[in-house]
Amino acid sequence: MKTDPDFIPSGGVTSPGGFTAGATSAGVKNKDKRRPDLGILLSEAPCAAAAVFTTNKVKAAPVLLDMARLKKGTARAVVMNSGCANACTGAKGTADAIEMAELAARHAGVKPEDMLVASTGVIGMMLPMDRIRAAMPRIKLTADGGHDLARAIMTTDTVPKEAAVKGDGFIIGGMLKGSGMIHPDMATLLCFLTTDAPVDISFLQRALRRAVDVSFNMLSIDGDGSTNDMALILASGAAGGKTIAQGTPRAPAFQRALNKLCIYLAREAARDGEGATKLIEVKVSGAKSQQDARLAAREVVGSALVKAAVHGSDPNWGRVLAAAGRSGAAVAAEKMELYLGDNRVVKNGSPVEFDKQKVVKYLDGKEVLIALDLHLGRGAATAWGCDLSEEYVKINAEYTT
Amino acid sequence: MKTDPDFIPSGGVTSPGGFTAGATSAGVKNKDKRRPDLGILLSEAPCAAAAVFTTNKVKAAPVLLDMARLKKGTARAVVMNSGCANACTGAKGTADAIEMAELAARHAGVKPEDMLVASTGVIGMMLPMDRIRAAMPRIKLTADGGHDLARAIMTTDTVPKEAAVKGDGFIIGGMLKGSGMIHPDMATLLCFLTTDAPVDISFLQRALRRAVDVSFNMLSIDGDGSTNDMALILASGAAGGKTIAQGTPRAPAFQRALNKLCIYLAREAARDGEGATKLIEVKVSGAKSQQDARLAAREVVGSALVKAAVHGSDPNWGRVLAAAGRSGAAVAAEKMELYLGDNRVVKNGSPVEFDKQKVVKYLDGKEVLIALDLHLGRGAATAWGCDLSEEYVKINAEYTT
Repeated sequence: MKTDPDFIPSGGVTSPGGFTAGATSAGVKNKDKRRPDLGILLSEAPCAAAAVFTTNKVKAAPVLLDMARLKKGTARAVVMNSGCANACTGAKGTADAIEMAELAARHAGVKPEDMLVASTGVIGMMLPMDRIRAAMPRIKLTADGGHDLARAIMTTDTVPKEAAVKGDGFIIGGMLKGSGMIHPDMATLLCFLTTDAPVDISFLQRALRRAVDVSFNMLSIDGDGSTNDMALILASGAAGGKTIAQGTPRAPAFQRALNKLCIYLAREAARDGEGATKLIEVKVSGAKSQQDARLAAREVVGSALVKAAVHGSDPNWGRVLAAAGRSGAAVAAEKMELYLGDNRVVKNGSPVEFDKQKVVKYLDGKEVLIALDLHLGRGAATAWGCDLSEEYVKINAEYTT
Repeated sequence: MKTDPDFIPSGGVTSPGGFTAGATSAGVKNKDKRRPDLGILLSEAPCAAAAVFTTNKVKAAPVLLDMARLKKGTARAVVMNSGCANACTGAKGTADAIEMAELAARHAGVKPEDMLVASTGVIGMMLPMDRIRAAMPRIKLTADGGHDLARAIMTTDTVPKEAAVKGDGFIIGGMLKGSGMIHPDMATLLCFLTTDAPVDISFLQRALRRAVDVSFNMLSIDGDGSTNDMALILASGAAGGKTIAQGTPRAPAFQRALNKLCIYLAREAARDGEGATKLIEVKVSGAKSQQDARLAAREVVGSALVKAAVHGSDPNWGRVLAAAGRSGAAVAAEKMELYLGDNRVVKNGSPVEFDKQKVVKYLDGKEVLIALDLHLGRGAATAWGCDLSEEYVKINAEYTT
């Protein structure tokens, strides 16, 4: 996908003009095991800001703080840490989130109310505020600091996930941390997006929600939605030009670029899911409605049994049909048609002869496409996920200990 | 639980009077790897019959056949096989299910329309009818054949699951195969129940649904609902006495005994879940409503991250609160109280000091109780599941191959 000419080589959140970033090692999770875990993203200019947050009723302190601060629709910076989620931490957690924002605001030279906060890591652990106070002044904000920041928000991620795309006179950059506790309809994961485009606040919010719907909301790694999820975009307007708003000439180009970037990041998150060895893409077509297509695609990509079968390169396609059947989408068993890559394995809901060796070899690849045609209508949707490996269990059986 | 005096030692489906059963090896899945995989459960007398079926829209041929045959509310026998689900098998699958019932009816000496069919195993594989035709006459129906039959329906189950309880002048027996593709609200798994009590058909259906609601519908092994699930009860009336119907004196005792048996079997299914090393029991109390308690209990027990944490004896309780928060139940983060066994780890939604070594030792046990008090009302519910182990992945990555 990065061969797409719209992608900027080695792009990220500091690719758009006017953004700086930096990170340092605070020792949030373990004071003796230093890795980058605290950082700041800053815009030189005031930004229109929009976000989508977790729908979990248990929301982390930084999420609640940001929801309040974003009511005004503007912001200039985000301070973020990995290693501790600052969730289920009561009044002390709220005070810590506020102080962390203040420390970062002072360091970056912005007003506290323009500083947002994001945390990710272990739930139910207090932020080590002494270490955060000590580390904050060490953060150096630079015009190519986005790469360091993308590393600082990683938890069980094995690679940083970042990219930037060019639009019609503007750039949108983004970075994401994913890995575990990821499921659709929760906004999922932490994703920070920046753009130098001048964007109307209400259009920015709508465009972000649309992009999230076709990207992160179609991503499932383990069915667990987190307390800390957010996708946030800051639009500085530094690139100049007319403001992009609903109905303006550049609105479609902005939406296209944003969707492209978010889908790219969602796929990278799926590929780097905890323990993942393969990216799974599920395309459902022929659904009665688009909503049905979304339901079926997400249920298939989220099925533990489908994920385990893909892991073992086992063409156990019955599990795909069973998952579609319980998804809530309208299905007619006798109409379903299923492909694994180019290999048709089911027609009219019944098995067809296929070259098993060829299909097993296909499933051995790094990207597996499952294409299900329900033959009931014109609804279509795509979802992304990863295989379920022994490694996922190992990672999550030993997370806090 | 089997120390409960109501349980009959070594009880099963042939414990109630008037039931016989038997099984043989047909080589359904693999003609060269013989294990018991075909059997019949028979009542000497006509029975009131009730069942709860999978809600999956992709239903196996035997499920559709039984739904039609049970409209009359009576039946005498069930023929069952493991190794092949006869699901997603089209018109041929339907014809095979009908023929399998006919072969069994002839062998058992009952009318074809009184013979039900159940299959479990790989989806999308045709029944090897030649082997089933050859094997059927070898089934010997005996008064203690329930144990052989319980073995014949095992797939990845490692132990047969069966029991019988004494009620007020009657016995209820049951057996179950569980293991994988198991999730609430689907009727889940295959469960066959027998009783010599005389029971009114409409009460029998209602009592079964109630028992399933507090047992199998509170059981989650991997979140995957199958195409073949059913819970079926046959009531022969052989024990005599007045018919048990809604509002009659023995109705509460019948319901109690049925609930007790179904909960016992659900717990055994959880304990023997694919790859399971521990039984997890989640008790939610203080919910705003019983429905909320059910939602929260099932979400917690079904969380891959909670399951993995229990597997690793990791007291990562934040995952429990996060699961409750996304369950749809009303929760107030600052009110939640959580116990792991006797150890309180959260009060008012915030961590409390606890003896980590003691909790880890508790989590090392074979049964783990997670008790969450939402402190919002009087709703309570219990759900069962198992830990997520590397073995689960191994089993399901290599199922058909």
